[in-house]
Amino acid sequence: MIFKSIGLFGRYQDAAVKTTLNHIREHLEQRGCTVLLGDTTHQEIQGLRIGESGQSLAEAIDLGVVVGGDGTMLHVASALAQVDLPVIGINMGRLGFLTDIPADGFAADIDLMLAGDFEIEERMMIKAGFVRQGELQDERLALNDVVLSKGATGKMIEFDTRVLGETIGRTRGDGVIVATPTGSTAYALSAGGPILHPLLPAIVLTPICPHTLGQRPIVLDGHSEIEIEFVESDNERGYIFVDGLDFAEVQPGEVLRITPADRCARLIRIKGHSHYKALHSKLGWG
Amino acid sequence: MIFKSIGLFGRYQDAAVKTTLNHIREHLEQRGCTVLLGDTTHQEIQGLRIGESGQSLAEAIDLGVVVGGDGTMLHVASALAQVDLPVIGINMGRLGFLTDIPADGFAADIDLMLAGDFEIEERMMIKAGFVRQGELQDERLALNDVVLSKGATGKMIEFDTRVLGETIGRTRGDGVIVATPTGSTAYALSAGGPILHPLLPAIVLTPICPHTLGQRPIVLDGHSEIEIEFVESDNERGYIFVDGLDFAEVQPGEVLRITPADRCARLIRIKGHSHYKALHSKLGWG
Amino acid sequence: MIFKSIGLFGRYQDAAVKTTLNHIREHLEQRGCTVLLGDTTHQEIQGLRIGESGQSLAEAIDLGVVVGGDGTMLHVASALAQVDLPVIGINMGRLGFLTDIPADGFAADIDLMLAGDFEIEERMMIKAGFVRQGELQDERLALNDVVLSKGATGKMIEFDTRVLGETIGRTRGDGVIVATPTGSTAYALSAGGPILHPLLPAIVLTPICPHTLGQRPIVLDGHSEIEIEFVESDNERGYIFVDGLDFAEVQPGEVLRITPADRCARLIRIKGHSHYKALHSKLGWG
Amino acid sequence: MIFKSIGLFGRYQDAAVKTTLNHIREHLEQRGCTVLLGDTTHQEIQGLRIGESGQSLAEAIDLGVVVGGDGTMLHVASALAQVDLPVIGINMGRLGFLTDIPADGFAADIDLMLAGDFEIEERMMIKAGFVRQGELQDERLALNDVVLSKGATGKMIEFDTRVLGETIGRTRGDGVIVATPTGSTAYALSAGGPILHPLLPAIVLTPICPHTLGQRPIVLDGHSEIEIEFVESDNERGYIFVDGLDFAEVQPGEVLRITPADRCARLIRIKGHSHYKALHSKLGWG
Repeated sequence: MIFKSIGLFGRYQDAAVKTTLNHIREHLEQRGCTVLLGDTTHQEIQGLRIGESGQSLAEAIDLGVVVGGDGTMLHVASALAQVDLPVIGINMGRLGFLTDIPADGFAADIDLMLAGDFEIEERMMIKAGFVRQGELQDERLALNDVVLSKGATGKMIEFDTRVLGETIGRTRGDGVIVATPTGSTAYALSAGGPILHPLLPAIVLTPICPHTLGQRPIVLDGHSEIEIEFVESDNERGYIFVDGLDFAEVQPGEVLRITPADRCARLIRIKGHSHYKALHSKLGWG
Repeated sequence: MIFKSIGLFGRYQDAAVKTTLNHIREHLEQRGCTVLLGDTTHQEIQGLRIGESGQSLAEAIDLGVVVGGDGTMLHVASALAQVDLPVIGINMGRLGFLTDIPADGFAADIDLMLAGDFEIEERMMIKAGFVRQGELQDERLALNDVVLSKGATGKMIEFDTRVLGETIGRTRGDGVIVATPTGSTAYALSAGGPILHPLLPAIVLTPICPHTLGQRPIVLDGHSEIEIEFVESDNERGYIFVDGLDFAEVQPGEVLRITPADRCARLIRIKGHSHYKALHSKLGWG
Repeated sequence: MIFKSIGLFGRYQDAAVKTTLNHIREHLEQRGCTVLLGDTTHQEIQGLRIGESGQSLAEAIDLGVVVGGDGTMLHVASALAQVDLPVIGINMGRLGFLTDIPADGFAADIDLMLAGDFEIEERMMIKAGFVRQGELQDERLALNDVVLSKGATGKMIEFDTRVLGETIGRTRGDGVIVATPTGSTAYALSAGGPILHPLLPAIVLTPICPHTLGQRPIVLDGHSEIEIEFVESDNERGYIFVDGLDFAEVQPGEVLRITPADRCARLIRIKGHSHYKALHSKLGWG
Repeated sequence: MIFKSIGLFGRYQDAAVKTTLNHIREHLEQRGCTVLLGDTTHQEIQGLRIGESGQSLAEAIDLGVVVGGDGTMLHVASALAQVDLPVIGINMGRLGFLTDIPADGFAADIDLMLAGDFEIEERMMIKAGFVRQGELQDERLALNDVVLSKGATGKMIEFDTRVLGETIGRTRGDGVIVATPTGSTAYALSAGGPILHPLLPAIVLTPICPHTLGQRPIVLDGHSEIEIEFVESDNERGYIFVDGLDFAEVQPGEVLRITPADRCARLIRIKGHSHYKALHSKLGWG
């Protein structure tokens, strides 16, 4: 059996998720799998936490099963990518871009997966680095996006963008989103960016509310090294977020550096999967 | 003479503004006007401050002359609107939406104005009120816009919009801009809003990066009473800015209320003025 | 009784519309009304055509009842506006911006209407005039929009826009849409225009795919006189459409003139009507 | 010498182009090159036409030199791509995306080129095929874009889009633009598409004024096979344009098929060339 030990992850906003998690656990155990729980999952349903297994994450489980929306999936997929573990997403009724298996009827798809009847879809990630006085301070992987934005202020921030050392230009506005194909249907889409095919090795830079109307989203090679230097502007600071989470606070002269990540998220796709189904239901392409 | 005592206002980012301010002061004094200076202006060129005149602003001057860009003009025009004083804007070489007289050759236009050969253009303003537990906490007038936005966070905020008590809908995103016609060419334009003719009695609601793509800018009657109620969302707070300046910090259940202002900014327009010239030079309509 | 003789209008794309039309006719007749049929309606259900009544449209009926979508409603409302007749719209299951009464349960609303328990909502219209060598050639009223666009060509057209004689600018692109508030949620929205509140006395000019990115939609006073002059461009012609129907073909130097119409469409609104409901269901504002 | 025989191409809209063409010819001849003229070029300045050389295009010249704007360059580069000839573009004062050498001072860059001090930049092309009843009728290469659009009508057209046989969705609107990176800064940009880096092996599908607001531009792998099937819609026809020129007229059931081209345009780039300079001057990124 390919997946012997499975990590189960889910966030509960209603009782339905809890019920679904229990059903999935029972189903997996009936099929002979060991099921371990994520930390927050463990607060809601009974069972052994991954952390209690006495093993590292990579040793403890072979696969992550996520129940919930794209937000939950994003964080689990990203964490498991660090140790090269695949993940599968089960939605609670609303098809997601990442969670495409409906909870209602999950058993058939889970069984196909356990029988080895699936494909691995590799989603590229990018690495955000924060550079102060030429020194790299901190780094983090992103599956969706890296954002430089203003804080709680009514003023614009200003920054210079360089690709492989070449200057693209200076932007004044609310900030900029550097998104992977996976992230192109999230925040970047709201800011006016295009949809990237999930497997295209590309990234898209989308300025947020740029003062200059010609500063439209730019799609670059996924291996581009991008530097975004924060420029002095009215005593404002900039804030960097990685997949929606706080990463760093920047001052003038400091730089957000985006480089290719050497890891990717690995999504389990059951036969019949289409990248375009979520476009139909979520964006009206149907 | 219509304008006997004139307040002179300007922000210096280079020596050229200082020189221009001195030229304008000399010109006005040669024409028999008294010239008083704004507070920051007084730090740069010599002369009597308005505050030192021993009179209230409304008594001390008959008119404001602003040298600089639309940002400076916005704040002076707004302050003078509180006491019904008109204002004229002189730009330093780049035509603005509000400052349409070029510094290079200001004398002819100033003389026409002093001779009474001008029109007053009334720009509507709106009033922002911050309501906590049903009680109005604070109010402020806006000439450009009132903005509710997220702070230094990678998450969206959520709010409900009502017009005259009727619900328009719930929005998740970075925030919303309520702009006057004057403000429609500022931040709201960057966020995807339309241009409103400067004299149209209307306001435009422009969601900032809304999660739902169908939530497009809405143009409403200028006398609409709008309520934007902040909704609990991931422990985030909302921030209200009036003409780009801090106004209030809001928590779930608290409300931003926009009502018509009973005052307007009064811009002096010399013959030959066109509302569309700034579109030509700033937005490429030429 | 306010409405004694009622014109019934509907387009059939499926049998359901036919059934609904018959139900409505029976209901109206039971309430003592005379029901006459529109021409195409008469091809599908039995009854007397308005044209067979021996009277003019204005004399023959007091009200139009339309069954179908916004497209059908648009054309009937526009035709009845010419003779100051009101109209009410019944949708076949999908709420429209104009047809807000669901067929399923129409009786209660129809009875309220017959009892006089309704309001008239006046929707502004605009007049399109086609001017060749200074001479007005033809005029037509629009309830949605007047469009100047290119024909079957891969090239752009070029035109100058003037408002009250003042030049806004020259545009190269696919064309321009001049929309009323009613039309702002139709073609203009697809082209990037804002939503105008249905009762705002304003019109919106939305360039279609303009070459210059700064040429954003402009909202003008509803009484503006707008002239759009077609400019010589690569031997192309321009085409004018009024509410989606052919109106005129233009050559360089010829002008599309938009003026306020002296008539408006009169929509019957039953208590509980909200302008925003269609935003919820059609644009995701819910 | 790498380039012995050079084809000179230019369109004259003013006398300045003619003068520049003569200067360039003289300069090239002084450097020992043979200069042959394009057909329309030959109507304006004296010299031997390529067609009179008694050789095929591929034999007659080693390189094309184009004087003018991006439009002229597009058509020459595309024609020369068919026979694998490189091309260099000289602009008449306004930097283009393709013509980045200023006429004023061309000599230094031309000399560097003749000395072999240059790079070849390969721009991907796509192939448009028109399919009727399953049979391929005609094919043509595009360097910028392939467009399916409505004709001279006030109605929308309707079409289905498939990528590698998988359905993306049905669109109603004015049409769709399939653009290469080179074409992404042309018509597609006006329709709301993103900018693609010129060397990214990708194409972007941009719906033109889609009725459904969620139908945003999609960026796909450059090797994707795309099929766009025209759907019956109100008796309308569709029109296909390749790089702005007429290609085919389509009826319901007929298909536009986009496949990768096996040829590319080859642009000569002199040291110091930057892909971003044209963004600065044309789109305000400076």
